[in-house]
Amino acid sequence: MDQHLHHVEEHFSGSDLIRDVVIGMSDGLTVPFALAAGLSGAVDTTTLILTAGGAEIAAGSIAMGLGGYLAGKTDAEHYESELTRERREVIELPDREEEEVSEIFREYGLEEDQIKSITKTMKKNPEKWVDFMMKFELGLEKPEPTRARNSAITIAISYIVGGLIPLFPYFIFHKPATALMVSVIVTLIALLIFGYVKGRFTGTSPVKSAFQTMITGGLAAAVAFGLARILT
Amino acid sequence: MDQHLHHVEEHFSGSDLIRDVVIGMSDGLTVPFALAAGLSGAVDTTTLILTAGGAEIAAGSIAMGLGGYLAGKTDAEHYESELTRERREVIELPDREEEEVSEIFREYGLEEDQIKSITKTMKKNPEKWVDFMMKFELGLEKPEPTRARNSAITIAISYIVGGLIPLFPYFIFHKPATALMVSVIVTLIALLIFGYVKGRFTGTSPVKSAFQTMITGGLAAAVAFGLARILT
Repeated sequence: MDQHLHHVEEHFSGSDLIRDVVIGMSDGLTVPFALAAGLSGAVDTTTLILTAGGAEIAAGSIAMGLGGYLAGKTDAEHYESELTRERREVIELPDREEEEVSEIFREYGLEEDQIKSITKTMKKNPEKWVDFMMKFELGLEKPEPTRARNSAITIAISYIVGGLIPLFPYFIFHKPATALMVSVIVTLIALLIFGYVKGRFTGTSPVKSAFQTMITGGLAAAVAFGLARILT
Repeated sequence: MDQHLHHVEEHFSGSDLIRDVVIGMSDGLTVPFALAAGLSGAVDTTTLILTAGGAEIAAGSIAMGLGGYLAGKTDAEHYESELTRERREVIELPDREEEEVSEIFREYGLEEDQIKSITKTMKKNPEKWVDFMMKFELGLEKPEPTRARNSAITIAISYIVGGLIPLFPYFIFHKPATALMVSVIVTLIALLIFGYVKGRFTGTSPVKSAFQTMITGGLAAAVAFGLARILT
């Protein structure tokens, strides 16, 4: 999941917080909705739908939250281990590191005397040289120390909030068919709004994002509904 | 440098394929497992667990697969829109772009006459200048054209494969308690193996990764089990 998170991070102009809300809420709105819809085609009372839905939200929020925590920790550990390696290499293999810097610049059409002059300056300040290698050779940014913990909490809460929206009608209406109908309407509207807001933050067209998000959730629910009908 | 980068990338995340398998299987092994465990504490026959589990796998694999597809498409669109912008800015606002390049190098302690010389060379080749800004200012790599589709398929299949492992015992044993016991053992072993392999590819300690992955799945299942007990 870590790499996926990185990709998302790249195209988000917003903060890490927004990114984590999107990760948690995307799945939270979709999977419990689809599961409840699927079970509505298979059972007679809403009690079991609420039990399965509640268990799913608990399982999903913990699994995704811990996943986010481990991804954050792995990023931090990976950064530290690469930093240690680069620091060692700058001391032990300065010629190879110099050649690596040179190749980066050669790719962009700089001339040899320019490159020589650059590497000479960098060698004077090994700490900045290491910073340069971390960012431009390895493409790594120093992670925030509280990142893993905050990420876990935000993802889990967003999953729970997202998941309670489609389940809510099953608390109120006791006939699965009625609850399903209300759940479909409420959740499709929530997916539209969520997709719109997500689009605004990710820089894609909000209207397009709204419909894409709604179709994703709707399609998942429709297939789950059909499958549950077949299985019972 | 290519070889070195290749090596680093391998060390870090493996290919996109492996990344997507990890995304799909992490959730596929955890959430259906936890859901089935949760329902085992609440129902008398395995039929309903299989229905809910099947609906969850259908919903989860479609939601995650489409999520991966949209993420891939968004990456590609974002890359194109930023590329267009950088190309325009290099022509329309060359002074500002030159200042942006200068600031990147100033951060690493290069002197003003070195920077001047670099920007002068870059201006001679605007296409490489744009490449440089894409990678070093914005941190964006050109996405593969088939990325979104392949990512969707890989994530969905991995989710289904992961999800069928914990559900399998419920096909064989008809008493929920027996099936649960077998499911717990089979799934914890699968999580250990999966965590170990994942650790090897992501560069963290395989043994540590094996136990972290097992604990994540186990914890999610335990809480879902407890919650389902309370809800019924």
